[in-house]
Amino acid sequence: MKILVTGAAGFIATNLIPRLVRDHEVHGVDNFFLGKREFVARSPAMHFHEFDLLDRERIAALFAEVKPDRVWHLAANSDISFGTTYTDFDLKGGTLVTYNILEAMRLAGTKEIVFASSGAIYGEPAVMPTPEDYGPLFPISMYAASKIACETMITAFCHNYAMRTWIFRFGNIVGPFPTHGVIYDFIRKLKSDPTRLAMLGDGNQSKPYVHVEDCLDGMMFGQEHARDEVNCYNLAVADQTSVNEIAQWTIEAMGLADVTIERSGTKRGWPGDVTQVRLDTRKMKALGWRPRMSSGEAVRRTIKECVAQLA
Amino acid sequence: MKILVTGAAGFIATNLIPRLVRDHEVHGVDNFFLGKREFVARSPAMHFHEFDLLDRERIAALFAEVKPDRVWHLAANSDISFGTTYTDFDLKGGTLVTYNILEAMRLAGTKEIVFASSGAIYGEPAVMPTPEDYGPLFPISMYAASKIACETMITAFCHNYAMRTWIFRFGNIVGPFPTHGVIYDFIRKLKSDPTRLAMLGDGNQSKPYVHVEDCLDGMMFGQEHARDEVNCYNLAVADQTSVNEIAQWTIEAMGLADVTIERSGTKRGWPGDVTQVRLDTRKMKALGWRPRMSSGEAVRRTIKECVAQLA
Repeated sequence: MKILVTGAAGFIATNLIPRLVRDHEVHGVDNFFLGKREFVARSPAMHFHEFDLLDRERIAALFAEVKPDRVWHLAANSDISFGTTYTDFDLKGGTLVTYNILEAMRLAGTKEIVFASSGAIYGEPAVMPTPEDYGPLFPISMYAASKIACETMITAFCHNYAMRTWIFRFGNIVGPFPTHGVIYDFIRKLKSDPTRLAMLGDGNQSKPYVHVEDCLDGMMFGQEHARDEVNCYNLAVADQTSVNEIAQWTIEAMGLADVTIERSGTKRGWPGDVTQVRLDTRKMKALGWRPRMSSGEAVRRTIKECVAQLA
Repeated sequence: MKILVTGAAGFIATNLIPRLVRDHEVHGVDNFFLGKREFVARSPAMHFHEFDLLDRERIAALFAEVKPDRVWHLAANSDISFGTTYTDFDLKGGTLVTYNILEAMRLAGTKEIVFASSGAIYGEPAVMPTPEDYGPLFPISMYAASKIACETMITAFCHNYAMRTWIFRFGNIVGPFPTHGVIYDFIRKLKSDPTRLAMLGDGNQSKPYVHVEDCLDGMMFGQEHARDEVNCYNLAVADQTSVNEIAQWTIEAMGLADVTIERSGTKRGWPGDVTQVRLDTRKMKALGWRPRMSSGEAVRRTIKECVAQLA
């Protein structure tokens, strides 16, 4: 099977592609905005194409040439706070890019798309843990607004052009080869100055962290076993970890002491930050899958992996 | 108060503006894609600006100059079937236009937006009548996907820039000064050929029709009485009318007989047509408002108004 992966130089794809290339012809696209060249170098079996997915003609030409059977659409802005500064950042990098991919799929006859969505779409929900059928969807970040826009374009394309989709609404995904995120941020800050740690928010933000290996297991299991036209699953763990815990565990793992934690003074880490996330994971469980690592285990393992990896 | 109306030459605005200009300075924008020049001529008190809302600089300049206090955002593609032929039609005319307006509001300090959304966002829901908190939102048309994208950008802007919104998810709105829709379509076809009537779908599509006067009453009541940051209401009636009934009533009202109805042979009127719509209207009722006309009354009155009006 021919598989096209977007965001191919990013965090999740870098962990995914070694699995895909075993059985498939894999084409990857990235513009290195967040992705890294050294990550691409780890996957010599992948056919790599460097361009910006906003280039509609380029993506259509690639699809026309390759005619992929399935797309793993992982490309996105992963820094939610960007969307407050540049209000069209997610509109472009999320919504317009996803449209370009769907239209290229339609023109090339590609019928399957796996999409990385986010638990952020639920905004600040009245029901926690939040199930997949929660409504209304009133997100508080441009990032989440764009993820919903992508989901709904995908379902409309599925209906009208006989496509099929697997939408996974992620908790916070962590693991080796990060390009961003709180663990990455803390380790880099502490390597640069081991005496103090600037923290966004009051540290009480608490979310389910999923190790990327569990995330990929879950996506692959879901993609294989869920056979509706539109398949949509929360991909998370049942417990949560606070930012204060992550700070503490990172400091311990790096063998530091007497680190002054400087909290930003706000409750949210950034505008649009959902501080308390609880995702209902029963639907994936009913499909037959559950994660191996708890949130705490995923965070501790990632800290260990990243302390070793990050210069 | 200064009010800016988008889609100012369209069906709903043409009925709305005579009400607004009594108490407010009203600015209208339209590009006459669907709107009509003769409709604008009916509202000499309105300050009219002709341009395309895709022109981000132009809309920002107008907002900077006028500094409106409130926006009634009514501009949209109202022909759902366009979205299947031109897959970026709603992305441009819905999603990108709405982003341009929100960004112009942010830059100009405009804090309030009334938005015309649609019951189509629920797709083909498992719950009917469908309440506002229904999920998941898996729409089947590009039109509905775009309406959701607009709603979610609006809620994200509200959260981050202290704006407030009133989102109304419409049933089918009917009334005088139409630019499109099944009644408009039937009357024009029958005036052109009184012996036959081509019908999209099998005629059993059944939806709640709301008279535009009720629609405007409801929007104005809701805008005045609902005071949350995000206020979202279905705006519909409790009963429904079928396309077959509309055809029959139109034929009768025009005094015709022996009209051959030519059904298109499909269940849906067009790809992405939701054939059965039932909207839960209890939230508006709890706010203290209910429509005066039933669906049947709204359709019959509209047929009478439009037969007289359409050449």
